[in-house]
Amino acid sequence: MSEYRGYQGISLEFLKTNQISVGDSVNILAEITFSGIIMPRYEHSDDKHIVLKLKSGYNIGLEIAKIEKIEKNQETIKIIKTDKKIEKVEGLPKILLLSTGGTIASKIDYRTGAVTPVLTAEELNSSVPELATIANIDAEVLFSEYSENIMPEHWLKIAEKIKEFSKSDYSGIIIAHGTDTMHYTSSFLSFALAGFPIPIVLVGSQRSSDRASSDAALNLIGATKFIIESNTKGIYVVMHQDENDDTIACHIGTRVRKNHTSKRGAFQTIGDNPAFLIVENQIQKNISKDFFKVNEFQPKINLDTKVALVKYHPGYDPDLLNQLIENGYKGIIFEGTGLGHIGKVMYENVKKANEKGIFLGMTSQCIDGRIGMTVYESGRDLLDLGIIPLENMIPEVALVKAMWAIGNYQNIEEVKKIMLKNIASELSN
Amino acid sequence: MSEYRGYQGISLEFLKTNQISVGDSVNILAEITFSGIIMPRYEHSDDKHIVLKLKSGYNIGLEIAKIEKIEKNQETIKIIKTDKKIEKVEGLPKILLLSTGGTIASKIDYRTGAVTPVLTAEELNSSVPELATIANIDAEVLFSEYSENIMPEHWLKIAEKIKEFSKSDYSGIIIAHGTDTMHYTSSFLSFALAGFPIPIVLVGSQRSSDRASSDAALNLIGATKFIIESNTKGIYVVMHQDENDDTIACHIGTRVRKNHTSKRGAFQTIGDNPAFLIVENQIQKNISKDFFKVNEFQPKINLDTKVALVKYHPGYDPDLLNQLIENGYKGIIFEGTGLGHIGKVMYENVKKANEKGIFLGMTSQCIDGRIGMTVYESGRDLLDLGIIPLENMIPEVALVKAMWAIGNYQNIEEVKKIMLKNIASELSN
Repeated sequence: MSEYRGYQGISLEFLKTNQISVGDSVNILAEITFSGIIMPRYEHSDDKHIVLKLKSGYNIGLEIAKIEKIEKNQETIKIIKTDKKIEKVEGLPKILLLSTGGTIASKIDYRTGAVTPVLTAEELNSSVPELATIANIDAEVLFSEYSENIMPEHWLKIAEKIKEFSKSDYSGIIIAHGTDTMHYTSSFLSFALAGFPIPIVLVGSQRSSDRASSDAALNLIGATKFIIESNTKGIYVVMHQDENDDTIACHIGTRVRKNHTSKRGAFQTIGDNPAFLIVENQIQKNISKDFFKVNEFQPKINLDTKVALVKYHPGYDPDLLNQLIENGYKGIIFEGTGLGHIGKVMYENVKKANEKGIFLGMTSQCIDGRIGMTVYESGRDLLDLGIIPLENMIPEVALVKAMWAIGNYQNIEEVKKIMLKNIASELSN
Repeated sequence: MSEYRGYQGISLEFLKTNQISVGDSVNILAEITFSGIIMPRYEHSDDKHIVLKLKSGYNIGLEIAKIEKIEKNQETIKIIKTDKKIEKVEGLPKILLLSTGGTIASKIDYRTGAVTPVLTAEELNSSVPELATIANIDAEVLFSEYSENIMPEHWLKIAEKIKEFSKSDYSGIIIAHGTDTMHYTSSFLSFALAGFPIPIVLVGSQRSSDRASSDAALNLIGATKFIIESNTKGIYVVMHQDENDDTIACHIGTRVRKNHTSKRGAFQTIGDNPAFLIVENQIQKNISKDFFKVNEFQPKINLDTKVALVKYHPGYDPDLLNQLIENGYKGIIFEGTGLGHIGKVMYENVKKANEKGIFLGMTSQCIDGRIGMTVYESGRDLLDLGIIPLENMIPEVALVKAMWAIGNYQNIEEVKKIMLKNIASELSN
């Protein structure tokens, strides 16, 4: 990272003149006085502003022309560092922690702006000391991406990595992951690694660990406790249950969704309670049914991204559907209205898609509840046109499952069959 | 409607031979014995099945080859009919009821399969007798569509109709509407008819009035009570609050969403409580803030459907965005991840869209919570690329507002300004 990352033209000149670089703590006198840390800038930025991270954790842009004075703050940033190696305690369960990036792994980013993973075993030890008392954790950085930049290729990379440990002495695997697309990744792993012998837990945080309200440490401790004490397997997402610190929720990886932009309790199990809760440090099983139907581990780590998610709405142009057909899409997941409907205006192109052998699945933009396509005329029409009702599958999960199914099964009939087979609680039938 | 609507070939022949037609109540002996009413069939149907509506309200298809015997049931359908004209009671408030179709208006459909509106004033009187004791209701059938077939043209038609009554002696207007896209219609009316002097209430039902669990009557009574007693104006959606019959919720038309495929309490106000509740027949104001900011009625009944809703997900092909640009789209509402993010893979085409003068707005697929694009690098990048963060606007509402804004305002700067102006509680700022 350069000291002036992203700054150019006027703003670069301004910083150089004042002998200030990215990461410096400064006081700025403009219309009012600001204190904070100079943040890097990014491609597409103009050169008339500098960006300051305030102590509140938020960033502001300041117009250089309005700055009267800028000076380096004498207060230096204390980055917690320790050279101490973690002492492994004999007899504790072993856990593998894979870091993929995201807020939970972006402590340093919040100070200097760089997305540097902090989850080496040593950094973990100093930031969440409780962990070393309950498990021996091996940590590895797989890659470092905010989760809006996680692509299906990353899913494959994570799955291939985990596959190596199907016969290890680990009690479970934790994946530190950004929260934005965590439920997409957990869905893919649920299908690709069905039957994996030890629990796989995705964990993230909604507030970075340099903020007082951070949920990072508790979620990590929760994920660890869950692996050690739940006596289960399968793929889970472990996050705060609500705004309190009392309860950590362990959601089935195919039944969970990020339902709030910022709350710590943003993740919710759709249509049911979370599978497990950790309440005041005690784990409790919360629903009685069997979660995962596959017992034998036969990894299927392929996918095909030629699947589209079509959210129907009044005014949706059916020609967009036609373009998907002509672009060689192999699967279309409809996010229909209500019980699983789309307007008559779509029928002609749906028929065409079906004739081309494209997999057509129906989910609902209501998100909660089951598809019911035999109740109304529209639903029955759509069944006749070849659309498969995907029960109570969450739209995003159906999308990921279709990518996975089309990538692993050769013909449309097999794909249809596997889409309606309950692999990892993605549908209840 | 023909007596054999939709039947052809083998199935038509089968019905004719047995002297049975659509709407007949029959007993069928197949593998097991069925009783029910013969339903019409639809385009694209095969000719090897007949469709029977069971007493449970559900339909089944029966393969003709497996039917041993079919006979007409002697029990005839009692369709409640009355020639009595409704007695208007002097001094009661006047309400206009416009019917657009949907389950609430489809009582007859559930018996014979035809989508015939039942909401003439007379039919209302016989099906919901309480109404005539609290209001004098004039009823009019505007059209008869299930709401998945409601198009933006229908929104215009409803708005133009209501506009005629801005200086009437009605206390309010009720719109009977299918539930699937009711919140899209309520959003459009909220913008097009901002400042309308009397309340406009959309009402629907999740279960048709021929089923024991129907919510149709209570929702209609609730809507009527709300108009008479709430002393408010604006556009609302009035539906069951939950599975009980005790509470009817009155939601602001831009803050509501159908969040369950089948529950009677499917509609929920996002991020807040419903504006009013009717609890055991008593109305109570439930949130304290002012809902509607526009006081002067200046209808703006235009729209432009060249707006797309783009739900971003891992594997979304940025070329689809390019196709929207090339197809002449004027607005794109992103349903981003988390606080309002889309992957870097999209940046180049977003930049191109911005340069073409396309309105670019950001909402979140989390649905609840506010957009926050200054917290992370991705968000700041997207701001630099010209994407407008749409606060806590619900994605579907943002889509409708953009169609409306682009249809009524000439240039992109005006559109940007109006999109961030709070007109009908669609955003809180």
